[in-house]
Amino acid sequence: MLEKIDLLKKIDQGDYKEKIKEQTLRLGELQRKLKDAKIPVSIVFEGMGASGKGTQINHLIQALDPRGFDVYANDKSTKEERMRPFLWRFWTKLPAQGRIALFDRSWYRQVTMERFDGKIKECDMAGAYKDIQSFERQLTDDGMVIIKLFLYISQKEQKSRLKKLDASKDTSWRVSSDDWRRNKEYDKFLSICEEMLEKTDTDFAPWTIIEAMDKDYAAVKIMTHVADRLEEAYHLCLSRGERKEKEVPIRTKEYQNGVLSGVDLTKTLTKEEYKREIDVLQERLEQLHSQIYRLKIPAIIGFEGWDAAGKGGAIRRLTSHLDPRGYKVYPTSAPNDMERVHHYLWRFWNNVPRSGHIAIFDRTWYGRVLVERIEGFCSENQWKQAYQEINEMEDHMANAGAVVLKFWIHIDKDEQERRFRARSEDPLKQWKITDEDWRNREKWDEYEEAVNEMLVRTSTTYAPWIVVEGNCKYYARVKILKTVVEALEAKISEAKKNT
Amino acid sequence: MLEKIDLLKKIDQGDYKEKIKEQTLRLGELQRKLKDAKIPVSIVFEGMGASGKGTQINHLIQALDPRGFDVYANDKSTKEERMRPFLWRFWTKLPAQGRIALFDRSWYRQVTMERFDGKIKECDMAGAYKDIQSFERQLTDDGMVIIKLFLYISQKEQKSRLKKLDASKDTSWRVSSDDWRRNKEYDKFLSICEEMLEKTDTDFAPWTIIEAMDKDYAAVKIMTHVADRLEEAYHLCLSRGERKEKEVPIRTKEYQNGVLSGVDLTKTLTKEEYKREIDVLQERLEQLHSQIYRLKIPAIIGFEGWDAAGKGGAIRRLTSHLDPRGYKVYPTSAPNDMERVHHYLWRFWNNVPRSGHIAIFDRTWYGRVLVERIEGFCSENQWKQAYQEINEMEDHMANAGAVVLKFWIHIDKDEQERRFRARSEDPLKQWKITDEDWRNREKWDEYEEAVNEMLVRTSTTYAPWIVVEGNCKYYARVKILKTVVEALEAKISEAKKNT
Repeated sequence: MLEKIDLLKKIDQGDYKEKIKEQTLRLGELQRKLKDAKIPVSIVFEGMGASGKGTQINHLIQALDPRGFDVYANDKSTKEERMRPFLWRFWTKLPAQGRIALFDRSWYRQVTMERFDGKIKECDMAGAYKDIQSFERQLTDDGMVIIKLFLYISQKEQKSRLKKLDASKDTSWRVSSDDWRRNKEYDKFLSICEEMLEKTDTDFAPWTIIEAMDKDYAAVKIMTHVADRLEEAYHLCLSRGERKEKEVPIRTKEYQNGVLSGVDLTKTLTKEEYKREIDVLQERLEQLHSQIYRLKIPAIIGFEGWDAAGKGGAIRRLTSHLDPRGYKVYPTSAPNDMERVHHYLWRFWNNVPRSGHIAIFDRTWYGRVLVERIEGFCSENQWKQAYQEINEMEDHMANAGAVVLKFWIHIDKDEQERRFRARSEDPLKQWKITDEDWRNREKWDEYEEAVNEMLVRTSTTYAPWIVVEGNCKYYARVKILKTVVEALEAKISEAKKNT
Repeated sequence: MLEKIDLLKKIDQGDYKEKIKEQTLRLGELQRKLKDAKIPVSIVFEGMGASGKGTQINHLIQALDPRGFDVYANDKSTKEERMRPFLWRFWTKLPAQGRIALFDRSWYRQVTMERFDGKIKECDMAGAYKDIQSFERQLTDDGMVIIKLFLYISQKEQKSRLKKLDASKDTSWRVSSDDWRRNKEYDKFLSICEEMLEKTDTDFAPWTIIEAMDKDYAAVKIMTHVADRLEEAYHLCLSRGERKEKEVPIRTKEYQNGVLSGVDLTKTLTKEEYKREIDVLQERLEQLHSQIYRLKIPAIIGFEGWDAAGKGGAIRRLTSHLDPRGYKVYPTSAPNDMERVHHYLWRFWNNVPRSGHIAIFDRTWYGRVLVERIEGFCSENQWKQAYQEINEMEDHMANAGAVVLKFWIHIDKDEQERRFRARSEDPLKQWKITDEDWRNREKWDEYEEAVNEMLVRTSTTYAPWIVVEGNCKYYARVKILKTVVEALEAKISEAKKNT
């Protein structure tokens, strides 16, 4: 999830000042409204070391009336705290109705830093996540708004910030040997954070990733996001009182995590490079296919992407050398009558491959958070819940030993237009292009927003999304086959180790 | 939970026939209504071996239109099923909208029988429960009604049923060596079932315990309960469509699990026996108190019971020999202003004892499902959710190493009246009795229903309820002290083993 995020977002100085002023006014007003509505708010700041949590908390509270909030720094636990159950120190600090609590590190400390330090046993992790989920669910059920922010910077940026802090007498005390260790083993700490985000990103208490390389950008994004969430909660509370259809204000889209915006679409391969590579990969896949059959490893491979991105062509290249008795391709279109009277995941459950077999889905269960979301075929609640439901399904399959991969084939709008036109002009391909394709194209921005959110919320360690640079079909196909080959190889060597 | 249930419930033959006829008509009509409303229903039959699951399923389907339901016997998994993730066999059998599926054993097989057989690793249990909860939540979020029945018989009854089956050629094939093993190790299997019921009893898919010693009683209770749940779901669906305040039909109370009805209130101790025993226990408690202090074991002891049941007297006897620096008594009355603006559990979290200390609560967090439920101080949804919330809190505390005990001191209505009158006539005790006490007394039946439900839903292996026969104060006090002594001794020896 994290590695997909475009970290280079910036804001210019003039824009920054204006936005801060705007959000400061908005936050002040919302704080008063939430006080009157008696809504308690908890704001959690988590993230990499030296990502600027303290600075950002300081920024945020400038906008708030000091009589209405409390800041808690959650360093190592005190003796009093260690004499109580783990959640005690947080329960006792919870904000009263109408108040705001800001937590600099929080109940996530144990599943991130303490886990990294080996202070929590791996087999206790499931229990720790369960405790956190119960805690947050109990509070939000009681009307609390929980806003969780994860401040994210790169290893290199972290190193240079730590160096700078270390160089000055005034700040060197803030850098501990633990900080340096987490920087050196950045990837290990990152993967711990990834799992934490995956396991605790719920519809009642979702995470928001803050790109914190540029402090000004982070400040604006945090203030805007907090204001959006408070406004949403206020309107929800109002509409509940009046028993009206709820009318939720639209979230500020400007600061959404960019995944697609960071994709380099200039990547290409020549025809010769392509031919050479694809042949090798296809032969290798053929061998691996018979190995996973013998080792009884199932594989589930999903394809999503823009219309005309090249899903069909990629699937053909992927399957051309495979034994047809060992794989099946399932095209997904609008549900039929039988499917319509079942849960939206039911039809995909029906097509779960046997062990040793590969199931390839041309469009997938992600329709729930793409077309169904955008066309209003399901309610807002339903598609918001779907992220967790889908993660749970994929987790279950991965736990049962399956390789689960999902490809988003990405092209830009111009490339799509070129391909649409080429199709309409080619009599052999005209059937592939319909009025609906042109209509969908008009909703490009809405889809882009939905795709970005989907990629962030459902790319997991056990079932990753692979964003494929698709402007060059050769490049795309090679990348897809290579990814499948590597994933199968990794699972096979894992399976061999376990026997 | 299970051991508390009064298993001797019966129904007489005339009554039985009439009730069956009544519920048959009702079920037929409800099936048609739910079909029109497109509500899918899953009914799960779990329970002890030879408890009559097959017979009861047969009974129930007599009332249903065969075109609208399917029965699935979930024996050991087939080869096809073993080649898929565990939940696959159930997902693919889920009922379409408007249909009913009956499961003879279900997704609970792995956490009961397979666990007993050692086929699932203990450290995988948390994951297995999580999978089940996600599965049921996904389905109920999608509008499915899940009814879970646990058929319960005693070890002796099970043995005699197995013998009878074994004796006849026609039925002996139904008794396997595994059945006999589960009978011989009845207590082990029972405690596995207890944990399963605790971990998967949720507000969206609650368990219902069926006293299955008397087959006729069980049949009537099952049919009535299923009809009640279907009616509830139908009304909920209607009221949602009309966006009206929901008007849920009242559940048939007649077949509630009796806990209080099975309590033997004739138990007594003479004054001499009492004096002898209480002295020994109090001295022992004194020793144990210093031991738990040294071993850093916290203890949380809650007292609930009818007005004038003798909570205060029992607490005095419990604490009289304890070092006052090591325990604290918290009386719980109506929440103050600060408490009112926090979560209802917040004030109890504030009083969590340090390790090595004892916290005694005179009335407790169970007010949520007793007085708040009955007086309407919280919504129906809120008290229904509270069972799980409270279990989660107590689980967290027990996991942190605490001894958690809850006493319900039980007296009958006549005894209460005697005590009330004695209090009003005694000038020294008049302050203890108010008009409110008399008013509460008028709601005895409502309270009895709430207490029964509370005891079944929140008596857990990690935080058990102890129902104390309270008509004789001597007996009650001795039982309470004895229970505390034994619980502390058990935890101390466990703690010593682990160091």
